[in-house]
Amino acid sequence: MLIALVTHSQTRKNFYIPDLNGYRILKCDLHIHTTFSDGVVWPTERVEEAWNDGLDAIAITDHLEYTPHSNYLKVDHNAGYDIAKGIAAQKDILLIHGTEITKKMPGHFNALFIKDATKIANDDYKKAIEEANKQGAFVILNHPREAVPNGGEWWYKELDELFRENLFQGIEIFNWNDYYPRAFDWALNKNMTIFSATDIHNESALYLSQLHMARRPMTLVFARERSIDGIKEALIAGRTVGFFRNVIYGKEELVKELFLKSIQIGKIHHDISRNASVSISNTSDIPYILNPMNQDKSSASIQLGAKESAIFALPSDSTSILEYEVENVMIRSNEKLKIKLTFIKD
Amino acid sequence: MLIALVTHSQTRKNFYIPDLNGYRILKCDLHIHTTFSDGVVWPTERVEEAWNDGLDAIAITDHLEYTPHSNYLKVDHNAGYDIAKGIAAQKDILLIHGTEITKKMPGHFNALFIKDATKIANDDYKKAIEEANKQGAFVILNHPREAVPNGGEWWYKELDELFRENLFQGIEIFNWNDYYPRAFDWALNKNMTIFSATDIHNESALYLSQLHMARRPMTLVFARERSIDGIKEALIAGRTVGFFRNVIYGKEELVKELFLKSIQIGKIHHDISRNASVSISNTSDIPYILNPMNQDKSSASIQLGAKESAIFALPSDSTSILEYEVENVMIRSNEKLKIKLTFIKD
Amino acid sequence: MLIALVTHSQTRKNFYIPDLNGYRILKCDLHIHTTFSDGVVWPTERVEEAWNDGLDAIAITDHLEYTPHSNYLKVDHNAGYDIAKGIAAQKDILLIHGTEITKKMPGHFNALFIKDATKIANDDYKKAIEEANKQGAFVILNHPREAVPNGGEWWYKELDELFRENLFQGIEIFNWNDYYPRAFDWALNKNMTIFSATDIHNESALYLSQLHMARRPMTLVFARERSIDGIKEALIAGRTVGFFRNVIYGKEELVKELFLKSIQIGKIHHDISRNASVSISNTSDIPYILNPMNQDKSSASIQLGAKESAIFALPSDSTSILEYEVENVMIRSNEKLKIKLTFIKD
Amino acid sequence: MLIALVTHSQTRKNFYIPDLNGYRILKCDLHIHTTFSDGVVWPTERVEEAWNDGLDAIAITDHLEYTPHSNYLKVDHNAGYDIAKGIAAQKDILLIHGTEITKKMPGHFNALFIKDATKIANDDYKKAIEEANKQGAFVILNHPREAVPNGGEWWYKELDELFRENLFQGIEIFNWNDYYPRAFDWALNKNMTIFSATDIHNESALYLSQLHMARRPMTLVFARERSIDGIKEALIAGRTVGFFRNVIYGKEELVKELFLKSIQIGKIHHDISRNASVSISNTSDIPYILNPMNQDKSSASIQLGAKESAIFALPSDSTSILEYEVENVMIRSNEKLKIKLTFIKD
Repeated sequence: MLIALVTHSQTRKNFYIPDLNGYRILKCDLHIHTTFSDGVVWPTERVEEAWNDGLDAIAITDHLEYTPHSNYLKVDHNAGYDIAKGIAAQKDILLIHGTEITKKMPGHFNALFIKDATKIANDDYKKAIEEANKQGAFVILNHPREAVPNGGEWWYKELDELFRENLFQGIEIFNWNDYYPRAFDWALNKNMTIFSATDIHNESALYLSQLHMARRPMTLVFARERSIDGIKEALIAGRTVGFFRNVIYGKEELVKELFLKSIQIGKIHHDISRNASVSISNTSDIPYILNPMNQDKSSASIQLGAKESAIFALPSDSTSILEYEVENVMIRSNEKLKIKLTFIKD
Repeated sequence: MLIALVTHSQTRKNFYIPDLNGYRILKCDLHIHTTFSDGVVWPTERVEEAWNDGLDAIAITDHLEYTPHSNYLKVDHNAGYDIAKGIAAQKDILLIHGTEITKKMPGHFNALFIKDATKIANDDYKKAIEEANKQGAFVILNHPREAVPNGGEWWYKELDELFRENLFQGIEIFNWNDYYPRAFDWALNKNMTIFSATDIHNESALYLSQLHMARRPMTLVFARERSIDGIKEALIAGRTVGFFRNVIYGKEELVKELFLKSIQIGKIHHDISRNASVSISNTSDIPYILNPMNQDKSSASIQLGAKESAIFALPSDSTSILEYEVENVMIRSNEKLKIKLTFIKD
Repeated sequence: MLIALVTHSQTRKNFYIPDLNGYRILKCDLHIHTTFSDGVVWPTERVEEAWNDGLDAIAITDHLEYTPHSNYLKVDHNAGYDIAKGIAAQKDILLIHGTEITKKMPGHFNALFIKDATKIANDDYKKAIEEANKQGAFVILNHPREAVPNGGEWWYKELDELFRENLFQGIEIFNWNDYYPRAFDWALNKNMTIFSATDIHNESALYLSQLHMARRPMTLVFARERSIDGIKEALIAGRTVGFFRNVIYGKEELVKELFLKSIQIGKIHHDISRNASVSISNTSDIPYILNPMNQDKSSASIQLGAKESAIFALPSDSTSILEYEVENVMIRSNEKLKIKLTFIKD
Repeated sequence: MLIALVTHSQTRKNFYIPDLNGYRILKCDLHIHTTFSDGVVWPTERVEEAWNDGLDAIAITDHLEYTPHSNYLKVDHNAGYDIAKGIAAQKDILLIHGTEITKKMPGHFNALFIKDATKIANDDYKKAIEEANKQGAFVILNHPREAVPNGGEWWYKELDELFRENLFQGIEIFNWNDYYPRAFDWALNKNMTIFSATDIHNESALYLSQLHMARRPMTLVFARERSIDGIKEALIAGRTVGFFRNVIYGKEELVKELFLKSIQIGKIHHDISRNASVSISNTSDIPYILNPMNQDKSSASIQLGAKESAIFALPSDSTSILEYEVENVMIRSNEKLKIKLTFIKD
């Protein structure tokens, strides 16, 4: 019957990124806690937040080893996933079954696409990670240490051993409010899959407000289809880029395609004195800043906000090739994406 | 040469409305003053404002009869158009040559697509309007009086005479901050072309801030092409709707197509108990509010902000037809657009 | 030691309302649920939300009779208060120990300032309410029914009996997204204390976004001091007004003082032709809209946004008394606050 | 009579900065063009913009030597001031009579508080500046060259000569969108009065939008009274600081007083384990960012937005002195303001 039919209607702030040739760009936050470890939000509400924040997919990854609410709350490592999956189906949020293996040494790891978190819980970190792999999990090194005490290597031998045995394949380059430039370059060198995640414990809106962020950090997944299998295939193939604080981090071929697909160049217009001008539009909700490279020093940056256009004068030559560095698209920790735009005047 | 090439780059806030089958929706403000009558903005800056405000076309329509700055400024009725047309070409803003014929009786009229405003200036209102028509102008009755003193008819005989002789074809239903519901119904009855305009004298941003408006009032023109000729053809054919304060006013067939083209219905999702829900997205920058009609009284409105989505539960029947009244789309002064959405569950 | 000293710094969006002569205006939400009944937010996070939302005080009022998470969570009616009080002290949020007595008949009641919720739990509604009163509680009728089936009285005899026996003293005139005009007038007639509350179950930010609200509904308490005792004294004395969706509801003497204290009239200025104008400033974060009463019909409303000023021309008389109706200050369900402003020209 | 009395009411977005002991902080933009030189805004509208943008005072400083609209507009160097002064009186905007002396060499100078611009016009730059001084003007070097061709000195001998003869006393450290760090240090060394100005030619709102600024650049004047004389006295005494893009530039004693007056430290609160926390509030509309200095490296910055509060944990010692560098308050081009806050626990 129709009672209260639309009462639960909710509005969502979409985060538009155009799809590419053959890929959907899925917006994912794959590191999230609930009341079932040290979070303060019930699992169903994590799905509501994700919907509201414009995400396609989340993973609930409660700690196996840390459950500080156990005076009041039953310890059940699968509870987060079990409780949230109904509302996820209703809201069309892809919910990935996950867990966090939390060891002082060699660190914290997320296991995604697992079957039973309880079987993974193990005092021996290696056995835990092996069990996750046995369940078909994709395993990620969380918030890698950038500063290692006593002059130790940041990529210490325990990690190296796990990585050589192919027991983990991904690495976070951003977590909560911390960026790991060394991990970003390492991921590019070693062909590891890149992740950017909130590791959120409190409410999404409070997290954003406390850190003065406009949007959640996300892993943008270039998936062949919008499904959990689609995400898994893309993670294994390494087709992800990190997004946080309006900056994109990833392999040049991926971020370049993403940027170029978001930009549209308009027709060239002439005023009565045959001066030429051209417009450039950003169709996406990611703002871009273009710094001119081969032009005169006094040229200003082009700030292309979400869904904004810009217009600027063209030189008098019949063909112009303008080069820009995209301020907020990183292809290595110390290198920005460069692009060339060609304008042919009639 | 390249000096200061991008120095003049500017960013524009786009106002997205999807194009329809066969029509571009052009955003026009066709009633604008400059320093050359009683405005306080130089003609070139009217083009900059238009670009910034996301408009496609403007008409500069300075008063022929009122030039209060003439102590300092030369009286030249074509100066607004002449001065602004260079920058308009450069910015790809369609600039329509216009003028305002400003008589106590029978009122104020805008003439668009004129050739020479000086020839239109005439103490005899009828001769002025006839000359405008002779130049091929499209003529519009501005801010029609809603309250007529001494019990007179609001559609007085002088107007009627001009209208019967086909000397004007359009009517403003909104001007500055005033809405004329009687003019709206009259336009629908008499098949007059509908206009909504700022009649702006001060700066666009001050106008918007003083009247607490988010966007300028506009005439949305359903044009076969984005050109001055395209606009003229559409005005003659009566294919316009008025837009102001986030409300749309027009013929049912036009506004319905506009609304339906902006809305996308998502796939139906089921949770594990087979409860169904569906999402609805607004692809445009016009917000819409849908009030449920055949549903339970307690059902809430769906508020679909610009580029937002909503989600809501569906009744358990296999086929649902939900009816809504669109709060902010008017097809007569006292009647809102009604729509039916059909949802078929698999 | 200093480790991570400022790591947990957080910024708060203040909601400024000036204090009155002798009273602090405390911003309170006194109807809130947590995971310990049917809410989805852990008690500590309710305090974080309150701080972030600019509140002074909250009451956690979980249902005694409805604990749907009990498969996972221990049933403990005092848990919400016990868990949250530490963080409340740290954040200087006044946390009131409360509970909700939830009966089909005669309805739902909140008991505030209780000592032990467990003792209040009772199948007999009257015994439950009596126990709350015995603990010194202030008791409130929640979301009173506006539509009563079968033509029954909305103020039915069970309520009347409880009220005559002084077992409850307050009434909600706003709850979640529903306004009860009949309850508002009733409260004024019967001298009951007025409440406006969220009755929030989900996250504060999601609640606000789903209902398109800028701020939480609040009870504004006119307290002699900023303390739990200060609030209790004010509730007993009936010194509260309701606030929601930027509208204020209350006794004329309270809302008038609140309004007048927020407004500052500037000096009168003259231009060179001796025309006079005056500015009016809103020092508070509550926007106000003033509709002119004794002036010309064409006079526009004055929209005084948060912290905004307005300026307007004065009549040429040496003394002007201008009358306004304050659009968003209600002193009965069908009556707005009227004010007179006197301007003396020198 | 009362006709249209409130029709012209307008609302203003205030920019709150607290007054100091003995000084009003006046918000001034003292470099503005109109249609009477190469601007595109009529003089009256410059006053409307100023009122809307929350300014106290402006100077209209049209070029004496450059009047590109003279085909249409009478050349009258006092017209800007004469036309705008009526509306300035009505709106209580302090309007300073000014002009810009515009020479290729030794540069551009603004003369404020002049009596007759026509008499200042002179092909000989020195005679022009001398005449301005004779009229009692305060003279400012505009947009000083930072890059001088052919390895020349930026503070070339013609400037030096004028300065030694005390023919100008102020210098712009910010103009339009350009910051001159060398001029800032020079002003501090030579005890010149600091200015930050828009040099605006187009509309204020378009200027702000094109440059992605939230507010206009301003000179903040520490005046003994809110009057034109009050401003003149403060300029002569050197009591100004520059403000642009949310950064403040000035002498340490002035900016420190400004900052400390804007900040309020709350009471220290303890939770049940005697952990202490404290709140800090920004009462002004200038956001501040505080970077911790003597604390642990991992301590985060405190971002205190306009009218926001922050809260943070205190160390366990009974007295804490915390040191911060204020990220956006500059006391030299390469030095930020440092402050110490002392917290005494009871």
